[in-house]
Amino acid sequence: MSPGADTLLAGVREKDPRAIGRAISIVEDGGPLAASILAALEHPCCEAALVIGVTGPGGAGKSTLTQALIAHYRTEGRRIGVVAVDPSSTLSGGALLGDRIRMMRHALDEDVVIRSMATRGRAGGICAAAGAAVRVMAYSGCEIVLLETVGVGQAELAVVHLADLTALVLAPGLGDDVQAMKAGLIELVDAIVVNKGDQPAAQALLAEMQAVAAATHRAVFCTSASDGTGVAQLAAGLGELADTLRQSDRIALRRQAARSIEVMDWALELLRPELKAAVAALGPLSGEPQALARLAIARLKATEE
Amino acid sequence: MSPGADTLLAGVREKDPRAIGRAISIVEDGGPLAASILAALEHPCCEAALVIGVTGPGGAGKSTLTQALIAHYRTEGRRIGVVAVDPSSTLSGGALLGDRIRMMRHALDEDVVIRSMATRGRAGGICAAAGAAVRVMAYSGCEIVLLETVGVGQAELAVVHLADLTALVLAPGLGDDVQAMKAGLIELVDAIVVNKGDQPAAQALLAEMQAVAAATHRAVFCTSASDGTGVAQLAAGLGELADTLRQSDRIALRRQAARSIEVMDWALELLRPELKAAVAALGPLSGEPQALARLAIARLKATEE
Repeated sequence: MSPGADTLLAGVREKDPRAIGRAISIVEDGGPLAASILAALEHPCCEAALVIGVTGPGGAGKSTLTQALIAHYRTEGRRIGVVAVDPSSTLSGGALLGDRIRMMRHALDEDVVIRSMATRGRAGGICAAAGAAVRVMAYSGCEIVLLETVGVGQAELAVVHLADLTALVLAPGLGDDVQAMKAGLIELVDAIVVNKGDQPAAQALLAEMQAVAAATHRAVFCTSASDGTGVAQLAAGLGELADTLRQSDRIALRRQAARSIEVMDWALELLRPELKAAVAALGPLSGEPQALARLAIARLKATEE
Repeated sequence: MSPGADTLLAGVREKDPRAIGRAISIVEDGGPLAASILAALEHPCCEAALVIGVTGPGGAGKSTLTQALIAHYRTEGRRIGVVAVDPSSTLSGGALLGDRIRMMRHALDEDVVIRSMATRGRAGGICAAAGAAVRVMAYSGCEIVLLETVGVGQAELAVVHLADLTALVLAPGLGDDVQAMKAGLIELVDAIVVNKGDQPAAQALLAEMQAVAAATHRAVFCTSASDGTGVAQLAAGLGELADTLRQSDRIALRRQAARSIEVMDWALELLRPELKAAVAALGPLSGEPQALARLAIARLKATEE
């Protein structure tokens, strides 16, 4: 291992926020130390952390709920990580989810580690980056890592599959788009959270979700994240759900599937620049795209490893 | 060319809706006739169609506006295509954008060709599929193809780059999420449409967008798609914008860039199954994901073309 990675990893173990931030950046950008850091993260402590996915449409109050869950877990003395995958932010900054959570509270609490990951402006690799970030946080002693995504786009939803279990956050009054999206999102998750439970329309949504849950074996919770109502019950329920999944080996199976998603994502990320070079080497692109793609692939395969 | 493709392409030229639908499906699924169909689409008529991107957050009224634009273009006697890229739908059906447009009107008008493309449940390839669908529609005589996406996810936004020019649809009252997303979306587009212009808060949004537009050289339009207000002005404005872009060769440049995006997307799609097989051949995945990915790539390159 290079000495740079060694020092950095020691800093991560000592929960130094700067070391944690740098380690994630190096892995995300594929810097020279990335391989050493990734190898060190294959450590039993990284397996011990529970990864809880929190997804849902914009406007459901995911950030407020995440923040309320953090507050709850902190009263239990647990160290918490948050990886916020955010299609609205750019790589250069302005991440919405993470910043929102960060700005609310916990900014000075070193046992809350928050990282935003942009998907906009990025060609791919979000699963690879998010998986690595989760493990950096676990390596720094986080017992629980919340993996927060806006459940809308193709790339963002793929991240959901990295979690050990996932909660879908909904709220009343989110409009037709969400209505149409709901069934598809419910398929992907273990638990449904009806947030903004203090709003008048919440009871109807809750009743609807309870009917759906009865038919699909999902857990349903009702919260009002802004004042903390129902958050302790949600945290307890997610913990019980994790125990059940663990006992039936389903978490182990999900982690195998997650590893395979991460490997695919890394492979595509590693291939992308080579493929781009192969496409560029074709010269001005005239002709049918699929045929041009086959030429680029042949060229790629002919290059030395 | 195989006789099957020949017959199908003749059907597409004759504007037979079933032939058009089948041709798009074959290309989207990569069926055996795909290569012949794609080759035939390298035809001057496909170059003549103007591809207008329509993007924006959920709730802005994109479907209603698309529907109003269709109605306007139909009064001018133009044949219109719509490719609706939709993260909320699944591959098996239930596409939201396309169905909404289809159900509103035009269901019996054979000069309106509508196709929904799901991104959910799909690992990639949406740019490849959308590009091919646009050309099938152009080949069938569509003068204008509207490429409608929900501007939220990484994969969905990539599709925007396939259009000759793009309009961002916003509406008042879409909440904080959209507020944070706005600047990033404006970067990607040529025109901003403030829809739901009859709502009281629309004037403030319009004033804000006019200020943004003055600073960033975007065109701004105000519509109320539900009653058609401003739609003719929008269509005229987009036409003028297309002329300006054409005169400065920018549409030609964008098409080169779009072709390169499509080729990359096809290449990744073609590589994906090979890569998946290479990952599976590694056996149970234990160890560091990036290192495993490198092994899979080496295995991929060693396979015969």
